[in-house]
Amino acid sequence: MAKKTVRIGIVAASSPFERETADRVAALADALFPDNPPELVVHPHSFRRHGHFAGTDAERAEAFLAIANDPGFDALWFARGGYGACRIAGDVLDRLDAPARAKTYLGYSDAGMLLAGLYMAGCAVAHGPMCQDIVRGNGDAAIERALRWLVARDADTLEPSLADGRPAAAFNMITLSQILGTPLQPDLRHHVLMLEEVSEYLYKIDRTMHHVTANSEIRKVAGIRLGRCSDIIENDTDFGMTAEEIVREWCGRSGISFLGAADIGHDAANRIVPFGRRTQ
Amino acid sequence: MAKKTVRIGIVAASSPFERETADRVAALADALFPDNPPELVVHPHSFRRHGHFAGTDAERAEAFLAIANDPGFDALWFARGGYGACRIAGDVLDRLDAPARAKTYLGYSDAGMLLAGLYMAGCAVAHGPMCQDIVRGNGDAAIERALRWLVARDADTLEPSLADGRPAAAFNMITLSQILGTPLQPDLRHHVLMLEEVSEYLYKIDRTMHHVTANSEIRKVAGIRLGRCSDIIENDTDFGMTAEEIVREWCGRSGISFLGAADIGHDAANRIVPFGRRTQ
Repeated sequence: MAKKTVRIGIVAASSPFERETADRVAALADALFPDNPPELVVHPHSFRRHGHFAGTDAERAEAFLAIANDPGFDALWFARGGYGACRIAGDVLDRLDAPARAKTYLGYSDAGMLLAGLYMAGCAVAHGPMCQDIVRGNGDAAIERALRWLVARDADTLEPSLADGRPAAAFNMITLSQILGTPLQPDLRHHVLMLEEVSEYLYKIDRTMHHVTANSEIRKVAGIRLGRCSDIIENDTDFGMTAEEIVREWCGRSGISFLGAADIGHDAANRIVPFGRRTQ
Repeated sequence: MAKKTVRIGIVAASSPFERETADRVAALADALFPDNPPELVVHPHSFRRHGHFAGTDAERAEAFLAIANDPGFDALWFARGGYGACRIAGDVLDRLDAPARAKTYLGYSDAGMLLAGLYMAGCAVAHGPMCQDIVRGNGDAAIERALRWLVARDADTLEPSLADGRPAAAFNMITLSQILGTPLQPDLRHHVLMLEEVSEYLYKIDRTMHHVTANSEIRKVAGIRLGRCSDIIENDTDFGMTAEEIVREWCGRSGISFLGAADIGHDAANRIVPFGRRTQ
């Protein structure tokens, strides 16, 4: 009996994607699943360029909705981050149809703005590798992990602490900070909140952790786990605390449990964190 | 009849201050008001160094409260910005006594975190030059403006659009963004909100303006005026919009009136914006 072919739509909701990168991801998918490879369909708008973005806001929203609202796709996979998801979030979230709510969404970084809104809209979303990660060192491992989760829900692709069964969510720190107090802020009560950061000053990580932990709804999380904070920008004055010390301090001040490390980050080792309670 | 001498307490709530800079400010104050110079008292903790900060959090909070709660001071003038005000805000705001509420507070940039909380606590606060501005090109003009306002409430030190009589408030953009959704978020309904930024990427200004304008309480402001966005960091991709175009767009999307320019910024021309309705 022929197995169903998993169909994955790829959308660049933020910065532009490259056709060459898409081709590398497609070739890897074929190699990983020789018997029944997933069908990867990159929305053609993803290769557009409009200044910083993969096309205008209208084009990116149209691309997102074309995949999200098409019942023929099992998943929408964010091509990459960068910047721009918040510019289409309102439009996109207003126009989700039933097929969009029966679909899985995978991405991280700037895509977190949309993951947050999609999660609030009842969609199945997960924080994890995007197509662009193939260009990182050992990037094939990130793509393999994403595809094994999207195609087969392989449990060993998941962030290990999820084994405790508690609902979870994961965000880039500043991405979460920049939706606090807006309609995109997700309800994370009782969730384990995993945070990671990249290319930032430690003093800004400190300021962002103040922001996140000062929010009364965020204080209702089950606890915070810290992913990797990579490529910290050196400042002329040493901050005097590590990222973990910063997060521990703000957790302590705000009465949030610090639960230890999370195996997520802006790197090829970034494990997958489905939002909410695991159902499989 | 001898005029009352205005007593101004100076506190570094964020990054460390320098004695030499304090001496320059004091000399300028004496020169500006030869008949009855204000008495400037720098809290000695302001010269301390603890990593990034002017002393530990406890030392900075103690310095702030020593001035704020002393009825002998007419005003608390922030020595400088940098980073660190949010780390003492909770402690400080919990411990304000009556003299703190009968006092004027002047600062901007990182000090905005405390201005916000002090404004919510009923204090008279204003966005305007700090002592450290004396080191800028034409910095004496900034100090003179601050002192003429602190000592004599000279009307020509004020941001010109305040002449329309509407209540106002002013913030560094990211500083306001990083208190949204927290107890420090001020009630700015019916206020003209003036925003400025420095040393930032345009895409981050765009993201911050999404954040600010997506907040349902901020949407109740009377309108937004844009101060100067200086020292914009160049990105490898041109953003394709100016800071004013960005602010106009987010105002348009969110139904907030864009009211034009504000004469504020991280520079010596930074005019003074008392929060709330002007009573003098």
